[in-house]
Amino acid sequence: MKIAIVGLGLIGGSMAKAIQKYTDHEVYGIDTDQETIKQALECGAIRKEIAPDDLKEMDFTIISLHPRQTIDFVLTHVSCFKPGSLVMDTCGIKTAIVHSVTPPLQQQGCVFVGCHPMAGREFSGFRYSVDSLFEKASFIVTPTGDTPAHITEFIKYFAQKLQFGKVVVTTPEEHDRVIAFTSQLAHVVSNCYIKSPTLHEQVGFSAGSFLDLTRVAKLNEDMWTDLFVMNKEPLMHEINLLIDRLTECRDAMASEDSDRLRQLLREGRILKEESLKVTIEPSYMNMNLPK
Amino acid sequence: MKIAIVGLGLIGGSMAKAIQKYTDHEVYGIDTDQETIKQALECGAIRKEIAPDDLKEMDFTIISLHPRQTIDFVLTHVSCFKPGSLVMDTCGIKTAIVHSVTPPLQQQGCVFVGCHPMAGREFSGFRYSVDSLFEKASFIVTPTGDTPAHITEFIKYFAQKLQFGKVVVTTPEEHDRVIAFTSQLAHVVSNCYIKSPTLHEQVGFSAGSFLDLTRVAKLNEDMWTDLFVMNKEPLMHEINLLIDRLTECRDAMASEDSDRLRQLLREGRILKEESLKVTIEPSYMNMNLPK
Repeated sequence: MKIAIVGLGLIGGSMAKAIQKYTDHEVYGIDTDQETIKQALECGAIRKEIAPDDLKEMDFTIISLHPRQTIDFVLTHVSCFKPGSLVMDTCGIKTAIVHSVTPPLQQQGCVFVGCHPMAGREFSGFRYSVDSLFEKASFIVTPTGDTPAHITEFIKYFAQKLQFGKVVVTTPEEHDRVIAFTSQLAHVVSNCYIKSPTLHEQVGFSAGSFLDLTRVAKLNEDMWTDLFVMNKEPLMHEINLLIDRLTECRDAMASEDSDRLRQLLREGRILKEESLKVTIEPSYMNMNLPK
Repeated sequence: MKIAIVGLGLIGGSMAKAIQKYTDHEVYGIDTDQETIKQALECGAIRKEIAPDDLKEMDFTIISLHPRQTIDFVLTHVSCFKPGSLVMDTCGIKTAIVHSVTPPLQQQGCVFVGCHPMAGREFSGFRYSVDSLFEKASFIVTPTGDTPAHITEFIKYFAQKLQFGKVVVTTPEEHDRVIAFTSQLAHVVSNCYIKSPTLHEQVGFSAGSFLDLTRVAKLNEDMWTDLFVMNKEPLMHEINLLIDRLTECRDAMASEDSDRLRQLLREGRILKEESLKVTIEPSYMNMNLPK
């Protein structure tokens, strides 16, 4: 099968390398950066650079761009895609992507499936891509009512081949609601955390907890601005809930209500301990999440 | 020198083991739990169990209890301490401790120095104590205007012997102000973070950022309630500032002001990158922090 990867960054580059390593498919690449193309050709991650027009010969196109770029690429080049071919993306939000690109691709005779490979590193770009990036990671696939069941099954099989540790099937909306909590909120909080005026005095006073809380403050602001704005309702909801909980703790401190504060902290400690017990998870699961 | 350790938990137990391993001092122990005493004797962490009355023979007493217990122990047993001896604590807050225990100990003829060994594990209790706990960790010592300079120097030397990677000298007040940001805020935020109703849907949607943000949610609520309430002013200040910054981001999302949101995230990203550059730090430093 001929696979095109549009955008050979950390995720697209790692996809190319993993496909070369673990499957017999042929990988072709599109990237606006010629140095990236050169590196991808040199290490054998792709067989050949192609132009958008060449997508008409591709059986499967993986678009691995930032959210708005993903939508722009599809809308600009929709007539290039091969009718009957499969198209997936790798963005961290799904509803806005699926709603924007499914109708035009459907009209072109293609099937689009929104996907989210939950992998990353603190660095971006092709030169940090590795064929092992997806080991033990989650791959989330978000079919809609229109997605043929065999397409979802193919995507699950494909993710397993690329060494993902877990495949989760859910809806675009459920994905966005949960990801707002597990990933987006973490990035907002971490980025806000580090901006205290006390930061410049932290040397010698920082241990693991500070490093944990601020690790993902180092984010790509272009990509995350898109992700946040395009998923603003679920994310704002989580931010508001967190502010409420912080306010509860602060108010208990203000009134020196130790019993109340202890109870609040106890609730969080127990929830964390319970979440740590969920260690044995089904590797490949179909989630029927509540609407 | 005869050293007593009051409270053989994770920190006190590790102190005992490190003193035995790296110095020639004799270590004696006080703990209300007989199983702990048994274990400490068996592994040679202490030479002998002693009673509070025996503190009159000790040259140096290290009190390694929770904050309120530390104050209670000193106030209850102040007449037991050997005049002329040195006393230190290991609590995570300093102003309230130093203010409460310095006057009675001074009257007894002892010198008290508030200390904070910034080390820990996700488990507590003697059975998790190790002689290597302090390797690469910071040791903060908070002398006051009354503390003889040679005492501060002795404590610094002692911490180096126990393998601490860095010794910071500051005032109790500065310690508490900075620790509110680097440690206490991290624990409050982490504990509040995990309490979203979305938590029970996170399996398969969680990657490193979620684990980072919620690791220290698993805290000892008795100890941290004391620490938070006894340092409420600096901590409430940091919580309020964080809520302000979260609100800024949320409002930029609400109005879909991508330029504003990008700018806010950019500021945090740059501050994090700059903080990562501070990799080569003086190992043993005297900090003259602004009042």
